[in-house]
Amino acid sequence: MVLLRRRLGDVLRGRRMQRGMTLRQVSAEARVSLGYISEIERGHKEASSELLASLCAALDVPLSEVLGEVSAALAVEEAAVLPLEHAELAVRPARSAGNVVASAA
Amino acid sequence: MVLLRRRLGDVLRGRRMQRGMTLRQVSAEARVSLGYISEIERGHKEASSELLASLCAALDVPLSEVLGEVSAALAVEEAAVLPLEHAELAVRPARSAGNVVASAA
Repeated sequence: MVLLRRRLGDVLRGRRMQRGMTLRQVSAEARVSLGYISEIERGHKEASSELLASLCAALDVPLSEVLGEVSAALAVEEAAVLPLEHAELAVRPARSAGNVVASAA
Repeated sequence: MVLLRRRLGDVLRGRRMQRGMTLRQVSAEARVSLGYISEIERGHKEASSELLASLCAALDVPLSEVLGEVSAALAVEEAAVLPLEHAELAVRPARSAGNVVASAA
């Protein structure tokens, strides 16, 4: 199952690294415990919307940008996972990967 | 403050409407209580990653697509809200409502 909190954690950690911030610094800025942020980054805990907003503010990145990055990462993951998971669900046409008609003219 | 669960709720409801599904149908498909889904759609409750995955499966929409739509909606909201919010927050970005010093010199 493709889970939001895992990719979200990766993206948040990536942004923190990009800014050269330690967990301690983000913790102080966002007023969230260091342990909790660490759990979120590892995809072990869910971040509430308020907490996520605080983290984004501390990292100085818009929430929309973080979610855009998460969305892109999830799309890659889905492309790898869904063909297996959704083999049965293929009756309903959500996405068109695999819908390409091989026109071997 | 720009909150994920509000936009997420809007997008989930929009997708449900698009598919012409009732709350009851999504509830049955996703095996989540009708009341809970309703609260999520209204942005009153947070959805766990597992629950969100179930809802997306019930709505037959990839999570990446839902988050992409949320990201786009949040970007619009941020463009409207952030210039106001961050005028004050520029010093310390966590949250400073009420920290304004009345300098009646």
